[in-house]
Amino acid sequence: MVYLTRIERFNAAHKLWVADWSVEKNQEVFGKCANKNWHGHNYKLHVTVKGKPDPQTGFVMDAKELSKVVKVEIIDKVDHMNLNLDVDFMPKGMQPTTENMLILFWKQLASKIEGAELHKLTLFETETIYAEYFGE
Amino acid sequence: MVYLTRIERFNAAHKLWVADWSVEKNQEVFGKCANKNWHGHNYKLHVTVKGKPDPQTGFVMDAKELSKVVKVEIIDKVDHMNLNLDVDFMPKGMQPTTENMLILFWKQLASKIEGAELHKLTLFETETIYAEYFGE
Amino acid sequence: MVYLTRIERFNAAHKLWVADWSVEKNQEVFGKCANKNWHGHNYKLHVTVKGKPDPQTGFVMDAKELSKVVKVEIIDKVDHMNLNLDVDFMPKGMQPTTENMLILFWKQLASKIEGAELHKLTLFETETIYAEYFGE
Amino acid sequence: MVYLTRIERFNAAHKLWVADWSVEKNQEVFGKCANKNWHGHNYKLHVTVKGKPDPQTGFVMDAKELSKVVKVEIIDKVDHMNLNLDVDFMPKGMQPTTENMLILFWKQLASKIEGAELHKLTLFETETIYAEYFGE
Amino acid sequence: MVYLTRIERFNAAHKLWVADWSVEKNQEVFGKCANKNWHGHNYKLHVTVKGKPDPQTGFVMDAKELSKVVKVEIIDKVDHMNLNLDVDFMPKGMQPTTENMLILFWKQLASKIEGAELHKLTLFETETIYAEYFGE
Amino acid sequence: MVYLTRIERFNAAHKLWVADWSVEKNQEVFGKCANKNWHGHNYKLHVTVKGKPDPQTGFVMDAKELSKVVKVEIIDKVDHMNLNLDVDFMPKGMQPTTENMLILFWKQLASKIEGAELHKLTLFETETIYAEYFGE
Repeated sequence: MVYLTRIERFNAAHKLWVADWSVEKNQEVFGKCANKNWHGHNYKLHVTVKGKPDPQTGFVMDAKELSKVVKVEIIDKVDHMNLNLDVDFMPKGMQPTTENMLILFWKQLASKIEGAELHKLTLFETETIYAEYFGE
Repeated sequence: MVYLTRIERFNAAHKLWVADWSVEKNQEVFGKCANKNWHGHNYKLHVTVKGKPDPQTGFVMDAKELSKVVKVEIIDKVDHMNLNLDVDFMPKGMQPTTENMLILFWKQLASKIEGAELHKLTLFETETIYAEYFGE
Repeated sequence: MVYLTRIERFNAAHKLWVADWSVEKNQEVFGKCANKNWHGHNYKLHVTVKGKPDPQTGFVMDAKELSKVVKVEIIDKVDHMNLNLDVDFMPKGMQPTTENMLILFWKQLASKIEGAELHKLTLFETETIYAEYFGE
Repeated sequence: MVYLTRIERFNAAHKLWVADWSVEKNQEVFGKCANKNWHGHNYKLHVTVKGKPDPQTGFVMDAKELSKVVKVEIIDKVDHMNLNLDVDFMPKGMQPTTENMLILFWKQLASKIEGAELHKLTLFETETIYAEYFGE
Repeated sequence: MVYLTRIERFNAAHKLWVADWSVEKNQEVFGKCANKNWHGHNYKLHVTVKGKPDPQTGFVMDAKELSKVVKVEIIDKVDHMNLNLDVDFMPKGMQPTTENMLILFWKQLASKIEGAELHKLTLFETETIYAEYFGE
Repeated sequence: MVYLTRIERFNAAHKLWVADWSVEKNQEVFGKCANKNWHGHNYKLHVTVKGKPDPQTGFVMDAKELSKVVKVEIIDKVDHMNLNLDVDFMPKGMQPTTENMLILFWKQLASKIEGAELHKLTLFETETIYAEYFGE
């Protein structure tokens, strides 16, 4: 079993805000991330698949194919977008935290990868914060 | 003459949009950067000052002092903000491009640095695009 | 289960030296790391916690809270310090290797994290050497 | 159990090409990687060993010793080489993909590491593609 | 005057070899870089243009346009290529060193950039070697 | 004229301390950098030389030769050392700041480089602080 990772990037706006809470409680819990006019990040997404290298090609999966699937299923839907407003697979009222984005990205992607199995997603929000998800 | 650089970071939302233009022209010129619901970046700012190292301290300028001035004059005003809407020193209708932000940052900062002279500002918008400004 | 990581940095001096050994044996085993007047590093620490994202906030844990605990329990005690001489949780005679620092950091931190569980610590000593520890 | 990683680099040429296939099929499957005159990469190899830190030295394994073994068994045989033509442990006709290189590197290295156990190899082919292998 | 930089990447094979010299002299001067079966690198190219930001768009030049020109004039001609054999603008017998590549890239690019002026090219051959050229 | 840069690294301990000042004044001016038991850094040094590429080799200067000179004149004298105590070219009482180290490194290196001219030295003390020196 070999694990193959492709890294993709996207730039997006978001804010963290619970509609049921007061302004004060939102600011207390989310701090600067609750700024009403949004803020944003350069996100970096690691997509890791696993499988046995093909005896002829030596590929677990063609990294260019992996890149294409990730682009269609995720990047095209979040790049230069507002994660709270513009993303069709974001449930209403769900916070676009790094953690939640990973779970949503997994649902988008897992069944679309052919010839290998999705193993892990890693999402960097900044250079000092990232999260990882293995599908459960 | 020695040049000393301090790197600071901030995360912000913005969009590129000329109010006098049609939606079509904005999209043609600015592409995905014209998304009406904003997008955002992790910005990285290099602040370079120049001077002669002090004979006793060996400092061109105390990097912690430099960091504080940059924080008060720039970072606190742009971090987790919307560059189009939330920044008091952004002239109305000015595009928050990397190039324009540098010119505005220079005006904010140049007269506030003591004991050394502001030499250059470098602003990374993404890992592959950055701009530099020397004050004129 | 989602894994959330926060990266923190500190700068410290140390040396590797076994008091019971001769100068020659110390130099043979530790090489340049045994320099009697110390040397130092810019350390980078990844702190990984695991948990289920909160349904309202979307957080496994507030990354700012995580950062504060790490700062109080670890960074404030090692940053700009001498790992052999200045660290109150360093047992006398223990070598401040990357491996041992991880085990000590784990003891400092594991019981202080609330709302999530410490999963892994990763410590980079240089750009080419790092160690990882899962608590056992 | 602590995991210790040493990162090494090498620069090499390669191409992906199945001799039994037509030129067209090779280009269709491997794209630009099938260029007949080769292309190349700056590879980055993470070698991770695991063990218990020695009570006196605090080392899972001396990182300098680890570096030397990796240099003799792998780096000296691939650095500034052609992975298809110059590598004595590359079976004839095997594709020098990131995935296959890892499996070959593991065979080269696993039995040569003393005092700790090889746990994982990670190979970056570019800044956006890497693979990992745990020996089975 | 603001300086705008776009970073592009390409992967290529090359070798350093003077046809008029003996094998021994080539190996003495170029060392491992003279390996007859080639080696290769992940190159990183910084393209810096200068100009006054446009009053409406805030652009010195559209970074996407800059990227396109660099792609057509340089990247498409060197990516996944052999710099000695495959590059139409490489004079016969010229060494594909980082220094020489920069001079050739400048000739390719300088007259093709519209609306701003090419100021500097920087080429990283590895993470520890790079060269810069200002056109003269 | 082409500029060629080679990056080298070293790890060292230091502290900032003016012997003529009180403990209080040292702590006020230098903060944590005045810790009596030292602290340390992973330094990264960029050495930039300039010249015309040789018509046959394509080299401004052989980067391996440049590396060797930098190693003998600088790295071997500061790596795994205490910058205040162990460096023979450090004048007594001089502060080992990034700025001062650059001036001392220039004196060490400038006359020893053959076939090209030393143009600039850049020294990173951390990932967020660096200084540059052009020899005057």
